[in-house]
Amino acid sequence: MRMVDIIENKRDGIELNKDEIEFFVTGYTDGSIPDYQASAFLMAIYFKGMTTEEQGYLTMAMVESGDQIDLSAIEGVKVDKHSTGGVGDTTTLILAPLVAACGVPIAKMSGRGLGHTGGTLDKLEAIDGFHVEISTEQFIQQVNDLKIAVIGQSGNLTPADKKLYALRDVTATVNSIPLIASSIMSKKLAAGADAIVLDVKTGAGAFMKTLEDSKQLADAMTAIGNEVGRNTSAVISDMSQPLGFAIGNALEVKEAIDTLQGKGPADLTELCFVLGSKMLLAANKAETEEDARKQLQNVIDNGEALRLFGELIKAQDGNEKVIENTNLLPQAPYQIEVPAIESGYVSMIDADEIGVAAMLLGAGRATKEDVIDLAVGIVLRKKIGDFVEKGEALAILHANTEQVDNSIKLLQSHMHIAKEKTAAPPLIHAK
Amino acid sequence: MRMVDIIENKRDGIELNKDEIEFFVTGYTDGSIPDYQASAFLMAIYFKGMTTEEQGYLTMAMVESGDQIDLSAIEGVKVDKHSTGGVGDTTTLILAPLVAACGVPIAKMSGRGLGHTGGTLDKLEAIDGFHVEISTEQFIQQVNDLKIAVIGQSGNLTPADKKLYALRDVTATVNSIPLIASSIMSKKLAAGADAIVLDVKTGAGAFMKTLEDSKQLADAMTAIGNEVGRNTSAVISDMSQPLGFAIGNALEVKEAIDTLQGKGPADLTELCFVLGSKMLLAANKAETEEDARKQLQNVIDNGEALRLFGELIKAQDGNEKVIENTNLLPQAPYQIEVPAIESGYVSMIDADEIGVAAMLLGAGRATKEDVIDLAVGIVLRKKIGDFVEKGEALAILHANTEQVDNSIKLLQSHMHIAKEKTAAPPLIHAK
Repeated sequence: MRMVDIIENKRDGIELNKDEIEFFVTGYTDGSIPDYQASAFLMAIYFKGMTTEEQGYLTMAMVESGDQIDLSAIEGVKVDKHSTGGVGDTTTLILAPLVAACGVPIAKMSGRGLGHTGGTLDKLEAIDGFHVEISTEQFIQQVNDLKIAVIGQSGNLTPADKKLYALRDVTATVNSIPLIASSIMSKKLAAGADAIVLDVKTGAGAFMKTLEDSKQLADAMTAIGNEVGRNTSAVISDMSQPLGFAIGNALEVKEAIDTLQGKGPADLTELCFVLGSKMLLAANKAETEEDARKQLQNVIDNGEALRLFGELIKAQDGNEKVIENTNLLPQAPYQIEVPAIESGYVSMIDADEIGVAAMLLGAGRATKEDVIDLAVGIVLRKKIGDFVEKGEALAILHANTEQVDNSIKLLQSHMHIAKEKTAAPPLIHAK
Repeated sequence: MRMVDIIENKRDGIELNKDEIEFFVTGYTDGSIPDYQASAFLMAIYFKGMTTEEQGYLTMAMVESGDQIDLSAIEGVKVDKHSTGGVGDTTTLILAPLVAACGVPIAKMSGRGLGHTGGTLDKLEAIDGFHVEISTEQFIQQVNDLKIAVIGQSGNLTPADKKLYALRDVTATVNSIPLIASSIMSKKLAAGADAIVLDVKTGAGAFMKTLEDSKQLADAMTAIGNEVGRNTSAVISDMSQPLGFAIGNALEVKEAIDTLQGKGPADLTELCFVLGSKMLLAANKAETEEDARKQLQNVIDNGEALRLFGELIKAQDGNEKVIENTNLLPQAPYQIEVPAIESGYVSMIDADEIGVAAMLLGAGRATKEDVIDLAVGIVLRKKIGDFVEKGEALAILHANTEQVDNSIKLLQSHMHIAKEKTAAPPLIHAK
């Protein structure tokens, strides 16, 4: 088998078989297929796409390129959730204890990543003492004991995907739905999930800007998951404005705690109910969505979800008192209002630019080496459709400096104000 | 400027400017742009094509990536001819003295290359003593003295093209008309041509199998040439069957001498007249095609063309007596008939496969290291439309062994015989 023939077939729109795709992934991982053939192949995929079968072969070959987490010692259906990422997306922190409180084992392997804020691991580390480096044995034990554990990625998971992603980044082949879908799915599958609920974001603040692209990505991922025998479903949720109010690590932990207490932002709470219901259904813990929502509401109302979040924190050496007193979270020294420059209704919030403002404050990473300030960030006071008086706060910046003019200007210019009231965008576009 | 942005623009169909294309060619040649970005870029070009302006920039950037031959010391318009290659294509050996005899300076830089037979240099080396390694100064002096010289490529011409071609070969990006066209044109321009006549072959034995592709390639090359200020024209000629009768190095030299004596195969002779006329017109040596053909006929009839071929051979230390006695050329020890297995009309000759048979006999190179047997090859006895009796010779193999069953079978199965007479294909498809 020669890689040049495989490239040529893909270029000419001929469907590749399992052997050919495995030959590529194995050879690329071990270095026998060079970068320059891989990048030409990726560009051919960019133009010609991949069938569901091809995407399934690619995904499984990437899963098999490295270690796989064996969660079989955990009883029950292990359901994982994945979000394609947005601004102010705190759902994992809420969903993990919420769903676990309903009896679904949550063995969450999370990342740090680059972005407007840190990843789930960074957010949890805003809690004093919390640590994510535990052995796989301890991890499994904790899930069996408590139904919940969150760790950083350990082992050599999907090295093929890592190598390919780095190559795509410098060869303009990132934006290919089959490649995005198989990359995400390979990581989820290698992490041992039996079932996967996907939250595909759509809108200005999402990776996929249009509903059509988001639907295509959701369809591709669910097709791959089901092709390889894992129950996979997807929700398409709005990211035309930030989710909830908080953008920043400690700020989002506080918002998660508020939500687990039943007093979180309406959009964030509703999204957690939609995704949580899907997770309960996938885990066979509910028969209907209505039943699932009832269970979720119940564990919020009776305090079980919040209590379990406390247990998780305690088990991983964090100060669990934070669930009762969020002032124990890191606090930024300065809280600075962003005043509206005119009166009217908020008509548009460019989520991406709000994320950039959070990053300017120090909440996120542009490169792996950047150090995050866990205390800083933004808390929105207004969202689309809200009325604001001239001079009233659109948002509060939590900053470690008083020099925040750039962030103020970014927010003022990317939270548009109109005379006419605009309806808030729908939260759930498809499910 | 970042290469990843240039790749992305090409991928998205955005026209690249001169600076961007020069940035790529310069960076790729000096190694600052890695192979994996170049191959992704080439694949994007494969799918998105290039405008004439882009092809012109690419061609000139490749020309400027290395040495350029300065032919300004030679008086007159230096016209070069390029063929995209086929089976039994002996035109250069004939055209060079034919056109030079009409007063056009022929400063021919030729190659060896891979293929069914050797290149022009190999063919000339079938003449005892002939050598092609002469200095550029001697080369120019010889053209000024004799109007004709043929040398091997010297200097570091179009290193960018060489590096890109090697990459295209292993990344399934060879078959892209803008890339083929700019590659060919860069080599011709770096070799110092003022005007270029292109012979684009079409049909089963050609690189371009369909007339449409051949026309596209011809159009692309003439557009590039004229874009960068060189008078460029093209002929599309037939390669659905081999040209002339001979396929093999010494055998083709003999056929060239026959043709210069006015007794060559009709198709080969006519193609030389068509291409030669274009060369005379490009060199301002003729006003009309009719006038040009008359001059060409004249130098054949009065022996000037053949005499000049003898002068060329003598000037480059070859045995010029070969023009009077072709038996002085290397002779293969065995001449073996390929009998027709049935009676009828030759309806199709798969030129590619005839070329493979010549290669099996040892006439060509599959890799640069292969050694050619200059004496061996094939002389066809029949071409499309000819009647053949069962058992009569379709062709004569000139071999260095009696074990030629494979070549015989190849010829018998790829020279189709039908009951009905098929018309010979047109020689010139467009000019």
